[in-house]
Amino acid sequence: MKKFLDDNFLLESETAVKLYHQYAKDMPIADYHCHIDAKDIYEDRRFKNITEIWLGGDHYKWRIMRSNGVDEKFITGNASDREKFQKFAEALPRAIGNPMYHWCHLELKNFFGFEGVLNGDTAEQVWQLTLKKLADPEFSARNLIRKSSVAMIGTTDDPLSDLSYHKLLGETDFETKVLPSFRPDMLVNIHKTGFVDYVKKLSAVVGFKIDSVEAVLRALTQRIEFFDAHGCRAADHGLDYIMFERAELSDINSVFKKAMSGVAVTKQEAESYQTYLLLHCAKEYKRLDWVMQLHFSCVRNPNTKRFNTLGADSGFDCIGVTDSCKSLHMLLDAMDFEDNLPKTVLYSLNPADDQWLDSLLGAYQDAGIRGKIQHGSAWWFNDNKVGMINQLTSLANLGILGNFIGMLTDSRSFLSYARHEYFRRILCNLIGKWVENGEYPSDFKTLGGLVEDICFNNAKDYFNI
Amino acid sequence: MKKFLDDNFLLESETAVKLYHQYAKDMPIADYHCHIDAKDIYEDRRFKNITEIWLGGDHYKWRIMRSNGVDEKFITGNASDREKFQKFAEALPRAIGNPMYHWCHLELKNFFGFEGVLNGDTAEQVWQLTLKKLADPEFSARNLIRKSSVAMIGTTDDPLSDLSYHKLLGETDFETKVLPSFRPDMLVNIHKTGFVDYVKKLSAVVGFKIDSVEAVLRALTQRIEFFDAHGCRAADHGLDYIMFERAELSDINSVFKKAMSGVAVTKQEAESYQTYLLLHCAKEYKRLDWVMQLHFSCVRNPNTKRFNTLGADSGFDCIGVTDSCKSLHMLLDAMDFEDNLPKTVLYSLNPADDQWLDSLLGAYQDAGIRGKIQHGSAWWFNDNKVGMINQLTSLANLGILGNFIGMLTDSRSFLSYARHEYFRRILCNLIGKWVENGEYPSDFKTLGGLVEDICFNNAKDYFNI
Amino acid sequence: MKKFLDDNFLLESETAVKLYHQYAKDMPIADYHCHIDAKDIYEDRRFKNITEIWLGGDHYKWRIMRSNGVDEKFITGNASDREKFQKFAEALPRAIGNPMYHWCHLELKNFFGFEGVLNGDTAEQVWQLTLKKLADPEFSARNLIRKSSVAMIGTTDDPLSDLSYHKLLGETDFETKVLPSFRPDMLVNIHKTGFVDYVKKLSAVVGFKIDSVEAVLRALTQRIEFFDAHGCRAADHGLDYIMFERAELSDINSVFKKAMSGVAVTKQEAESYQTYLLLHCAKEYKRLDWVMQLHFSCVRNPNTKRFNTLGADSGFDCIGVTDSCKSLHMLLDAMDFEDNLPKTVLYSLNPADDQWLDSLLGAYQDAGIRGKIQHGSAWWFNDNKVGMINQLTSLANLGILGNFIGMLTDSRSFLSYARHEYFRRILCNLIGKWVENGEYPSDFKTLGGLVEDICFNNAKDYFNI
Repeated sequence: MKKFLDDNFLLESETAVKLYHQYAKDMPIADYHCHIDAKDIYEDRRFKNITEIWLGGDHYKWRIMRSNGVDEKFITGNASDREKFQKFAEALPRAIGNPMYHWCHLELKNFFGFEGVLNGDTAEQVWQLTLKKLADPEFSARNLIRKSSVAMIGTTDDPLSDLSYHKLLGETDFETKVLPSFRPDMLVNIHKTGFVDYVKKLSAVVGFKIDSVEAVLRALTQRIEFFDAHGCRAADHGLDYIMFERAELSDINSVFKKAMSGVAVTKQEAESYQTYLLLHCAKEYKRLDWVMQLHFSCVRNPNTKRFNTLGADSGFDCIGVTDSCKSLHMLLDAMDFEDNLPKTVLYSLNPADDQWLDSLLGAYQDAGIRGKIQHGSAWWFNDNKVGMINQLTSLANLGILGNFIGMLTDSRSFLSYARHEYFRRILCNLIGKWVENGEYPSDFKTLGGLVEDICFNNAKDYFNI
Repeated sequence: MKKFLDDNFLLESETAVKLYHQYAKDMPIADYHCHIDAKDIYEDRRFKNITEIWLGGDHYKWRIMRSNGVDEKFITGNASDREKFQKFAEALPRAIGNPMYHWCHLELKNFFGFEGVLNGDTAEQVWQLTLKKLADPEFSARNLIRKSSVAMIGTTDDPLSDLSYHKLLGETDFETKVLPSFRPDMLVNIHKTGFVDYVKKLSAVVGFKIDSVEAVLRALTQRIEFFDAHGCRAADHGLDYIMFERAELSDINSVFKKAMSGVAVTKQEAESYQTYLLLHCAKEYKRLDWVMQLHFSCVRNPNTKRFNTLGADSGFDCIGVTDSCKSLHMLLDAMDFEDNLPKTVLYSLNPADDQWLDSLLGAYQDAGIRGKIQHGSAWWFNDNKVGMINQLTSLANLGILGNFIGMLTDSRSFLSYARHEYFRRILCNLIGKWVENGEYPSDFKTLGGLVEDICFNNAKDYFNI
Repeated sequence: MKKFLDDNFLLESETAVKLYHQYAKDMPIADYHCHIDAKDIYEDRRFKNITEIWLGGDHYKWRIMRSNGVDEKFITGNASDREKFQKFAEALPRAIGNPMYHWCHLELKNFFGFEGVLNGDTAEQVWQLTLKKLADPEFSARNLIRKSSVAMIGTTDDPLSDLSYHKLLGETDFETKVLPSFRPDMLVNIHKTGFVDYVKKLSAVVGFKIDSVEAVLRALTQRIEFFDAHGCRAADHGLDYIMFERAELSDINSVFKKAMSGVAVTKQEAESYQTYLLLHCAKEYKRLDWVMQLHFSCVRNPNTKRFNTLGADSGFDCIGVTDSCKSLHMLLDAMDFEDNLPKTVLYSLNPADDQWLDSLLGAYQDAGIRGKIQHGSAWWFNDNKVGMINQLTSLANLGILGNFIGMLTDSRSFLSYARHEYFRRILCNLIGKWVENGEYPSDFKTLGGLVEDICFNNAKDYFNI
């Protein structure tokens, strides 16, 4: 029996051990998609206790607590930080098999040197230990990033952002590149609340009136170029599902005007506008050699009662089932037909989509770049051991695993880099199994190269870091 | 190599062996959802031979025979019991990898002490052995239940039932609780044959005229309260798919009247009525602290020729693909919004639904109860080894496995309790693997507690047994 | 650690080793569905180099190269054969975990005796070795088939074909049966380009005017009987999805006339015609005891730009998501209701369909033949190790694995018989695992029989070879 979370955690063969420790472990991290705030990095934020850094904004942990019947008071409510931590510590041991169990203990071990087990009985010990450590400047935001050898962080930013903290960071000697990512969801979601206000704000930022779809595109391009000038290498679209609805520009303009007048647009109308915008975005991303990320198959804010009290992004979103296969083909086909298909990373939240998605990649690959179209790493609900193995295996079966750009955290926390370690161990173990089973030659020059590529080099090249 | 079906069947590590034998094995069984007839228990039914107890009503076995090209005469026809058993015994060895192979041999071993292999050659030996044993009063319905340490049986009952056998059983000293479950499918299925007759029968039972939706609800409530007074702790809805269609009560009344006049209702009309009824049911279940079970993604009676000759529930139903994700969210959201969401167990027959379903649970959990919303155990076509592992793993990844209410048989047979053993071995082996692989601490106090909870304690609490 | 691709490749237990080497390995091959050209076999085609035999028509390999950023010039373009091979050899090592890696090395080992590793550095060595070997008459089409112990080859043929090469082959002493398969897709696809021309050609072949649906059916029957007279035992339908749309014959005739006049038909119109044709085909296949194969859930030609330059079947097709469950039930039910359901093999390209498909089989099985309705072997994108294991496991869980008709190549290459070896190793390993784990008795008489049945005997019986 292996000791819990020892040095060879998740590494079940000698080949896996060697691949991880000699090749994967020390590669830098390109965390190309996360939700960390550049302001926190610039200000080198400090955290007063483990609850603040762990439970402050991590809706994965909130879900665990809710599933354990914990009262909201101890989750997002006004209980004390110590009480909240206690409730979480009591819930955690019941979540056997959940990646949260592994991530928490990896983080406690890697950052705080805690080698025990967190539960209701040890909560006080962990509270005191982490309290003391977090008081040390070594635990500032930047030092946590440094400790994790992060070469690049891709934040998620609204087109309205002035990117002031990215600029300020660029003027410091902080060695990690902190690059913005362009996420124009508010402008794409013509059917959602807040669209009219958003267009007005955008108008103020770009300095001209936005009264037509043409003006929306002009504004988009202006902001894309602004982001590009500030180091942005990637855009990101969070779509409930993939749509493709062609319409005449004049009709789309009518849809836009309808929405701007405060009238609800139909699903088909919204889709015609969204399709048009996505095609324009792709063209611009292609021109600037950006990466386009498309996230889909989410159910957002399904629990109305909780949404009314807690708002969005509070742990109620879910995996959706969407009819995105055909429309994704039509969308990429339309982009490619006009030579406007940029490098593209596709993420579905529903793992039942893995196989059709991995086969789809092959229909739009192109000369000159290895793996132009990527299947993004197992995302959100899927970044557990089984989810990662399934994503890697499906990709290997249907494409070229060696060209995969690898892991990201998608996180709001400075401790989440442990998830890269988790991914790397799983990757090395998977490859190790194949090698030990005679399915690939035991040639460490080739194997080590593939592992290093997937851990970092491929992402470095893909995002032009 | 392990011997076939030995004491450590399916237990592949020392941890698994210890968890099963020291913690799981002797826990009582809460078989909270099955199709056993309370009358059989009350009358302490006896079985004249293995064909009667095994092949009498088990459409799993009929499917195996049909897949082996056996003539219907030997399945549901007028061949002798001995001939039928022979055909089944000849088919079984070809069904390598099928859970039926394991269940049959577990049942032969546990109940009849047969340690050999059933096939065409050994059929006569098994026939004689079981014939002799079944003649012994030790093999009566109640004694089989006793032998399996069943603390509670949840039968499946129509709202029309007078629950007379449950009442009579309650007056005996039989130590197993036999509780009814409320299954109002006939009243919900306004679009299916038999609705009008059913409403008339219900009217006779409740003693008032049912000429409006309001009257339907009144009748429902009356029967729910009647069931509650007789120990019912759970309701069960068998839905082809999950629907959510809001409409005005006046419109739903028109739909009801249309149906009662013998005119076919449209899909949308049926759904508006069904949604209304489900919302009412949920409110009543919540009020009485019942558990609501929703089963979905079935294809019922697809083979018309066979349905015309053999009727329903004869082994032709299949896994369906349904558009239930969004509507299930809307349904639970509507219930929760009004604080009418009871404890709920969700079962999809399609395992491709596992991940979105497990993520959905997290959006409706609530304070005060561990795992208020449950993903039901791998159901029907899925209660095989791989299906159970996948259901447990997905639940572990996306929720809290330690709060799972565990296995049920969904069976019509008094020998099927072996499926609980099958489940427990698989559960202990899965957890054992994690522990042996360093993914969870080897702390048997915690592990044993989790295993006992999943095997029995969680269900005991959940159903207020 | 096992050596790469040694004699016990993919065989992880003693039971697996014994099952493969003593039972599976030397069974003949029934390659009942492939795309080999009977003309090549009749003319005993020779190949000038490895690029011609490997890269000439294999779009699996083209996909690998495109995913590695290789320019189309080196894939389907005018680069030299040596250059093309170099690009492929360089891409291959990056495709770790891809079945192509295994197939290529199995083919190099089995046919050319090359035991090394193919990559950019060894490409020249492999080129020279294979160049020399291919010059030997031992590497003619027929000798490659002989070397692989192929008892039967089922080609794929258009109803227009005069089957002249099948006839000529029948007059030789070539020991492998080369039988045509009937694939009337062009006649079924009333909504696709080329339909009108096709009907005209068919009219010329059958010798009467085809101006009604009745005439289409007459023509179909005539060609089916012609194929039957030339040894055809199977038909094959490549459908994007399964449809079922009933209509009056008069309406279907209007649809036919509309299409023949060059006017596009609606989806519903097309489906009514297609359903009618499929029902007729099934009746004729049943009458002649043929096997009906239905392939579905494909996305065909999604990349318009590439389709315009490279045409169909050039490596851009993908796994589709289709709404085929309900319609497949309705289609088979309609056939079965009239006693016109032939032996049927169902293949979905989307592995997410496996479970509902395996449950569906059980609803239409029939007396007198073991496994009348089959789930076809893991197809196209799925014939990798994981895909095969999943297909076999799902089939075992939900039906009778011992009645499975086993593997086919679906290939255009004379070296692809190595895929049968790949399948057999995976099959023996899966069964071996069950046996070693005590899930099935270690009885080699039974086990060996099951393995031999799945490898060859079942297909031999099923196709009346």
